[in-house]
Amino acid sequence: MSIYLDNNATTKLDKKVLKEMLIDLKGSPYNPSSNHFFGKKAHALLIQARAKIASILKKEKEEILFTSSASETLNMLIRGFSKKDAHIITTDIEHPCIFNCVKNLKNVSFLKTGPCGVVKEDQILSAIKPNTKLIVLSFVYSETGVICDIEKIAKIAKDNNIFFIVDGVAAIGKIKFTIPKGVSSMVFSAHKIHGPKGCSFAFIKKDFPYTPLILGGSQEYNKRAGTENLSGILGAAKALELAYDKIDQKIEKMQSLRDLLEELLKKELNISINGKGLRVCNVSNIAFPNISAEDLLMVLNQNKIYASHSSACTSRSFKPSRVLLNMGIKETQVKSSIRFSISRMNTKKEIIHASKTIIQCVKKLKNN
Amino acid sequence: MSIYLDNNATTKLDKKVLKEMLIDLKGSPYNPSSNHFFGKKAHALLIQARAKIASILKKEKEEILFTSSASETLNMLIRGFSKKDAHIITTDIEHPCIFNCVKNLKNVSFLKTGPCGVVKEDQILSAIKPNTKLIVLSFVYSETGVICDIEKIAKIAKDNNIFFIVDGVAAIGKIKFTIPKGVSSMVFSAHKIHGPKGCSFAFIKKDFPYTPLILGGSQEYNKRAGTENLSGILGAAKALELAYDKIDQKIEKMQSLRDLLEELLKKELNISINGKGLRVCNVSNIAFPNISAEDLLMVLNQNKIYASHSSACTSRSFKPSRVLLNMGIKETQVKSSIRFSISRMNTKKEIIHASKTIIQCVKKLKNN
Repeated sequence: MSIYLDNNATTKLDKKVLKEMLIDLKGSPYNPSSNHFFGKKAHALLIQARAKIASILKKEKEEILFTSSASETLNMLIRGFSKKDAHIITTDIEHPCIFNCVKNLKNVSFLKTGPCGVVKEDQILSAIKPNTKLIVLSFVYSETGVICDIEKIAKIAKDNNIFFIVDGVAAIGKIKFTIPKGVSSMVFSAHKIHGPKGCSFAFIKKDFPYTPLILGGSQEYNKRAGTENLSGILGAAKALELAYDKIDQKIEKMQSLRDLLEELLKKELNISINGKGLRVCNVSNIAFPNISAEDLLMVLNQNKIYASHSSACTSRSFKPSRVLLNMGIKETQVKSSIRFSISRMNTKKEIIHASKTIIQCVKKLKNN
Repeated sequence: MSIYLDNNATTKLDKKVLKEMLIDLKGSPYNPSSNHFFGKKAHALLIQARAKIASILKKEKEEILFTSSASETLNMLIRGFSKKDAHIITTDIEHPCIFNCVKNLKNVSFLKTGPCGVVKEDQILSAIKPNTKLIVLSFVYSETGVICDIEKIAKIAKDNNIFFIVDGVAAIGKIKFTIPKGVSSMVFSAHKIHGPKGCSFAFIKKDFPYTPLILGGSQEYNKRAGTENLSGILGAAKALELAYDKIDQKIEKMQSLRDLLEELLKKELNISINGKGLRVCNVSNIAFPNISAEDLLMVLNQNKIYASHSSACTSRSFKPSRVLLNMGIKETQVKSSIRFSISRMNTKKEIIHASKTIIQCVKKLKNN
């Protein structure tokens, strides 16, 4: 039995998503910018996909933008943010695509979250300066699953005329939400919800001031040039639709599996959970004292249990997680920590089998 | 019979390409950055695809970069070019993704090609200034099919220590070439050679100085962050392999079909070809005097013949082609011009049928 518990890195494509993608892939020479029959058909498909996403997110279709990845969208919004020399508020535990964008900017406050793993609204309030124009935070922290109270922070942003970008990648499909009014943009990735790699969709408020990252043709309301990845876009819309179909049941299922995993491990092992804040349903970042995460991941891999030690975008190098270190967790604990991330496709049987294997592997490593 | 003659806008996906893409799409949760079994498998697939492209282009695999579109790659290379305040040489007939990038820069010479449709090497030589650091040109002009002698210009670039970016999108698979030594980068798009939309591959010389467009994870040799679009990359490599399989025969076929189209039309109609320079095998940009291209395209569309009046990236608006206008072609002629672009999937039967239909439609429109 092969058990995949690294769903915050990427997920298995849903067969229904593939079916939708094949409309483009099997079909015809579809360029949504062409003016003939095929172009008009492609354009109609593109509009339908955008409308589907807009309807699920309860936003206008003109506010939905497709790009090739959440990294691209976040780079575009942060580096393209047109209020120059503005003060920016973020944390030092954001995804590399945010962290590596803002760390090169001049006027940034990197708030510390502590072991809680998320900032509190009073921290935001204290950090605001007269020239603060942008806040960038994750809705859910992908490495720990800790949830940020974006509703409260959106209110602060709104009251203070500050733009607010939210990385929604690890949140969507795992938590029910309405995008609060004070949020300027929320960015998502299809491949984290059983959709295709190579497609991101984002809500971007009409008044958010930014320069496009890719200039050229007039695609995507003149905001993102280049022939649209139609199969990716169709797949993304379908993936979102599926994620929202009986979403309560899906969330409940993931939560019960995640809780079961922690419960079974706690019975036999002395573990602790990284991230003390409220967590989303599908993530468990676990410290196994006196165990090398690198060794444990290797042994688990041999036993066909797949997890990771940090976000996939940094996990080929075995450096200890910047996110956990910046949360103030000791390096020894960080080096003993593994992230398990569950999807709606995992089963109870898998979790029971995985728990047994993890316990065996940890005990073996301890005896070595 | 439905006849698609707009292959420079996009092409039909080859079934063999789809089969290759399904390795990722049907398969497993493949993130090439993950460190477990699935990640390593995905990483191996990515490396193979890159090696395949490198081998066909006769370059090192570290010199092949994947992005989401040729527009993205060209934006990255031009706007990210790190020699600031350098003088740049280009023309005013480049694709929008080049034209819209350079037109915002300060120190650019836009050379005029005249009705020939391509710059001559002596024009380049005369335009060089002491601070000229970059030349950006198309290998083949997508709207006219006119070929640029990049070999001669590459030599000039090399002799003068100037970086040279080549848009190879309309060239690859349509002309046999070796990338000359003086070329710093050549950029391609998979969906123009029966590959998927959403994937570009480019040769970028190791010494080409540029800032990445997308910061974040360490994917693509730290040059382009974001989870790799593996199905797109596998499809792109396969599409290139197929384009190079018996490439002489494929080019000969396209050339004979294109020549046949022009011959049949010339017999019955008073037409002229836009772009006096040497042309690639698959493009025919034809002026039909006293006929509105917009009307003709509409009538052809009703008769299931699909062509376009300019590059797809601008063709939803019915503005006369900037490329043809800037070549010095009169506006009346530009407004009467249509681009037919052929692929290896077109047949002689199609061309004969299309020619008949075009002749009928033109004659009808003239009598109206």
